[in-house]
Amino acid sequence: MEKGRLEQQFEFIREMDKEKFIGRQTYLSDGVRKENDAEHAWHMALMTILLSEYANEEINVLKTVAMLLIHDLVEIDAGDTYAYDEEGKKTKEQRERKAAERIYGLLPSDQQRWLRELWEEFEEWKSPEARFAHAMDCVQPLMLNAATDGKSWEEHGICLSQVLQRNKRTAEGSKELWEYAYKNFIAPSVEKGRLKE
Amino acid sequence: MEKGRLEQQFEFIREMDKEKFIGRQTYLSDGVRKENDAEHAWHMALMTILLSEYANEEINVLKTVAMLLIHDLVEIDAGDTYAYDEEGKKTKEQRERKAAERIYGLLPSDQQRWLRELWEEFEEWKSPEARFAHAMDCVQPLMLNAATDGKSWEEHGICLSQVLQRNKRTAEGSKELWEYAYKNFIAPSVEKGRLKE
Repeated sequence: MEKGRLEQQFEFIREMDKEKFIGRQTYLSDGVRKENDAEHAWHMALMTILLSEYANEEINVLKTVAMLLIHDLVEIDAGDTYAYDEEGKKTKEQRERKAAERIYGLLPSDQQRWLRELWEEFEEWKSPEARFAHAMDCVQPLMLNAATDGKSWEEHGICLSQVLQRNKRTAEGSKELWEYAYKNFIAPSVEKGRLKE
Repeated sequence: MEKGRLEQQFEFIREMDKEKFIGRQTYLSDGVRKENDAEHAWHMALMTILLSEYANEEINVLKTVAMLLIHDLVEIDAGDTYAYDEEGKKTKEQRERKAAERIYGLLPSDQQRWLRELWEEFEEWKSPEARFAHAMDCVQPLMLNAATDGKSWEEHGICLSQVLQRNKRTAEGSKELWEYAYKNFIAPSVEKGRLKE
C-alpha cells in the first residue's frame, strides 16, 4: 500500500531529528560545548526575523527562514564540513547531493521538489534570500567565536586571512551586518591576538 | 552613551544562545540524549512549514514560525517546567513573566513589544496561529515519545489520562493532526504497555 501524505511527512519529520546529532566546530557561549546543526539553524532563523531590515535587497522573510531551517539537513548523511577543511570541501558537493536525494525523497513529491529547490537556491547564492541566508550563516559563528574569545579559531590555528576568505561574500547579503561583524567580532579578536594575522 | 539598535539586537541574539542549555524531558530519537529548547523550537518551526495545510483555521505561517522560535526563551531564566510537573506549574506564570521582562527588554523597544505580544498571544491561545503552535508543541513530543518507545513517559510513570489531559486542546489547532497523533503515537504506546492506562 502506498504511504499516505501525512505518513510521508512524519517520516521526514522523524528523520529530521538526526540533525540534532550533527556537531559543528563553533563553541556555544559557555565555551565548553560545541553547537549542533539544529541549534545553529534555530539561532539563524530567529536572527533573520530580527535582522531582515539590514538586507541589501528586499527579502521574503518566511522563505529565508525556511531556507535556513533546512539548509543543513543534508549533513544528516554527509556530515558537517568545517568551514576551513579544504580536503573535506572537495567531496562536499557530491556527498550532499546524494544526501538531498535520500532525505528530501522521504517527503510527498510537491514538498520534496519545493525544499530541494530551496536548498539548491541557497547553495547557488541565487536570490536575495539566499544571499541574506549566507550572511546569517557567516555572521552567527563570528559572533559565537567573539563571545568565546576565539576559542574555536585558536584550536584550529585559523588566521585572519582564512576568516576573510570565508567571508568574502558576506556583504552581498548585508553590507551593514558585515561591517558590524568585522568591527565587533573580527577586529577585537585580532587585537587580542586570538585570531592570528 | 545609549546603545545603538544593532548593538541591542546582538545583545539579545547572544543571550538567546543560552536557550541551547535548557533541557527538556523528551528523549531524542536515539533514546539516549534528551532534547533542549533550541532543538525543540527548530523542529517545530520546520514542522509548521510542512504541516500548515492541516490547520483548522487559516494561519499566517511566518507568524506561527516566529511564535514557536521564541516561545521558550523565557525558560532561559525560568527553566523548563515539565508538562506533568504539577508543583512547578503553580509558579510557572510568575517566573516566566519576570523572565520575559528581562530577556525581551534587551531588544529595541519596537521589537521588544512585538515579541512580547507574540509570546503572550501564544500563552493565551488567542489566535489561530497560537492554537496551531500549541498543536505543534504537543504533537512533536508525542512523536518523539513514540519513536523512543515511551521512554520518557515510563521514566516519569506517566499514564494515559495525563497525556490526554495535557492534549485536551491539541485538536483546537488541528483536528487532523491530533487524530493522527492519537492513532499513531499514543494508541500503540498504550497497546505495548509503555503508557499505562
